[in-house]
Amino acid sequence: MTDLNHFAPSGRTTFKRKPQRGTYDRDAIYAILDEAFLCHVGFVREKAPFVIPMAYARIGDMLYLHGSHASRLADEARTCQEICVTVTLLDGLVLARSALHHSMNYRSVMIVGPCSLVKENEEKLLAMGALVEHILPGRTADCRPPDDSEIRRTAIISLPIHEASAKIRSGPPEDAEEDLALPFWAGVVPLAFVPGMPVPDNPDGNMPERSALYIRKLKERSKVR
Amino acid sequence: MTDLNHFAPSGRTTFKRKPQRGTYDRDAIYAILDEAFLCHVGFVREKAPFVIPMAYARIGDMLYLHGSHASRLADEARTCQEICVTVTLLDGLVLARSALHHSMNYRSVMIVGPCSLVKENEEKLLAMGALVEHILPGRTADCRPPDDSEIRRTAIISLPIHEASAKIRSGPPEDAEEDLALPFWAGVVPLAFVPGMPVPDNPDGNMPERSALYIRKLKERSKVR
Ligand SMILES: Cc1cc2nc3c(=O)[nH]c(=O)nc-3n(C[C@H](O)[C@H](O)[C@H](O)COP(=O)(O)OP(=O)(O)OC[C@H]3O[C@@H](n4cnc5c(N)ncnc54)[C@H](O)[C@@H]3O)c2cc1C
Ligand SMILES: Cc1cc2nc3c(=O)[nH]c(=O)nc-3n(C[C@H](O)[C@H](O)[C@H](O)COP(=O)(O)OP(=O)(O)OC[C@H]3O[C@@H](n4cnc5c(N)ncnc54)[C@H](O)[C@@H]3O)c2cc1C
Ligand code: HEM
Ligand code: HEM
Repeated sequence: MTDLNHFAPSGRTTFKRKPQRGTYDRDAIYAILDEAFLCHVGFVREKAPFVIPMAYARIGDMLYLHGSHASRLADEARTCQEICVTVTLLDGLVLARSALHHSMNYRSVMIVGPCSLVKENEEKLLAMGALVEHILPGRTADCRPPDDSEIRRTAIISLPIHEASAKIRSGPPEDAEEDLALPFWAGVVPLAFVPGMPVPDNPDGNMPERSALYIRKLKERSKVR
Repeated sequence: MTDLNHFAPSGRTTFKRKPQRGTYDRDAIYAILDEAFLCHVGFVREKAPFVIPMAYARIGDMLYLHGSHASRLADEARTCQEICVTVTLLDGLVLARSALHHSMNYRSVMIVGPCSLVKENEEKLLAMGALVEHILPGRTADCRPPDDSEIRRTAIISLPIHEASAKIRSGPPEDAEEDLALPFWAGVVPLAFVPGMPVPDNPDGNMPERSALYIRKLKERSKVR
């Protein structure tokens, strides 16, 4: 498992629970990272854990986060502390005949490692562009790009994708043999994150063709399975 | 802010970034906890943070998580370690005229504190029922309840809701005055988590009236705003 197509499991990324649902496959991991855009970032302060929701983008084998220089995550990055980034796509609820076997269908990724603060303006600008394009493909051409002062006052935090794992569950409930005849409905209720009707802030409200385009892309990406 | 309707802010739950979006209001916090059912749990192992997606349920001022006794979280609970539970509802993407002011509409809750392992079978069974009912109201009457061995082999982890905060953003983009005339579409694209067509596991596929009921409740709870 040390080839280029798989991340090598480390002590702490070795699956113990339900390893049959785990994978280190790079394509599987990147497919999840490229579909979602919200992550939960864990860091440690005075020995206690904190978990913060954040947007992210990926460029190659690097994950980028952003925020204020005064945020706690920027502090962590200044001293290259370990963080954990978890990305979760919830695909459905799994209804079994027994309460115990209720479950969820999901695809999730966990990345652990030391983060850093990006210093060069060029890399920062690339990361900002990636963030906007990742969430709204095409939008960078359709808004005012960050100026020098905005680039400076924004903290960009990078995390190399090196210790990474994915876990995936799909398919029907897994009831025990002896429960299969119980008179309860069982099955999967698919769930998906879908965009609704845009609410314009412009007085005229007209949405140009190209804005409709990235909203359509957002819809395509988040289809109910 | 030490009345019964608000959680008292502690050093570590005091908002520093965008405090105008923060609240300690109990009703606001419980409304978010009651709408979502997925959380991200942070814990610390060998000084590094880990973040695990999990289901949860609330009974009064107590949050319940569940899993295997062999999970890392059950280990943490056995020795009453500090964890952080974060719940995030993503309500929309906020498209501003400037890249910088792009944002998200959201409602999120963060709870920190020491967790424990629930020992009494009675409380465990209540928590299991709450978990099923929280996600699928009515479903406990419609599946086989856990038997003694299933109760025993499942770890139920409790976290008192004591140090808790919520952060909420809603409404249009907040572009700078001088950007308002830029020729770009701006506004909000609402997002919501919606259930699709159920996929039956039963050979006949028929869904009884009461199953349709909790799926309808799931739909009502997760309307596109
Ligand atoms: C939507 C969703 C809901 C879930 N709900 C529950 C629940 O209610 N109860 C429950 O017990 N479990 C739940 N899980 C599974 C949970 O995330 C953990 O996988 C499980 O609890 C075992 O945790 P552990 O730390 O003991 O795992 P271990 O197997 O000890 O973890 C070792 C390593 O495996 C990898 N790994 C573990 N879990 C994941 C993951 N989810 N994604 C990517 N890599 C991973 C990481 O590298 C981790 O460091 C849920 C998962 C998802 C995606
Ligand atoms: C969907 C979503 C996406 C986000 N994306 C980004 C992003 O890309 N970049 C970014 O910088 N920020 C983002 N945020 C905000 C982020 O979660 C933090 O609030 C922010 O980064 C400040 O973090 P901090 O630890 O420095 O905050 P501090 O203000 O120092 O936090 C102190 C205390 O305030 C409370 N608190 C802070 N944040 C939250 C929260 N979200 N919910 C409940 N309580 C909270 C907690 O008790 C915390 O311990 C996002 C939030 C949401 C909900
Ligand atoms: C609607 C209710 C429930 C949901 C949505 C749910 C969901 C889940 C999920 C997603 C997992 C993780 C499985 C994985 O790692 O892939 C899990 C694990 C587990 N659940 Fe549940 N669950 C529910 C109710 C219950 C109940 C009532 C019990 C006990 C009676 C239970 C016992 C367990 C146990 C023991 C595990 C650990 C499995 C392992 O790590 O080997 N669950 N649950
Ligand atoms: C589509 C792209 C983007 C999205 C979805 C987004 C989303 C967010 C969100 C949700 C927050 C948290 C605000 C809060 O705490 O309520 C945030 C903070 C921030 N964003 Fe962005 N952002 C995007 C692009 C950018 C860009 C391109 C820049 C810089 C040029 C930027 C600069 C900042 C800064 C500086 C903060 C910190 C605010 C503070 O804590 O005071 N963002 N972003």
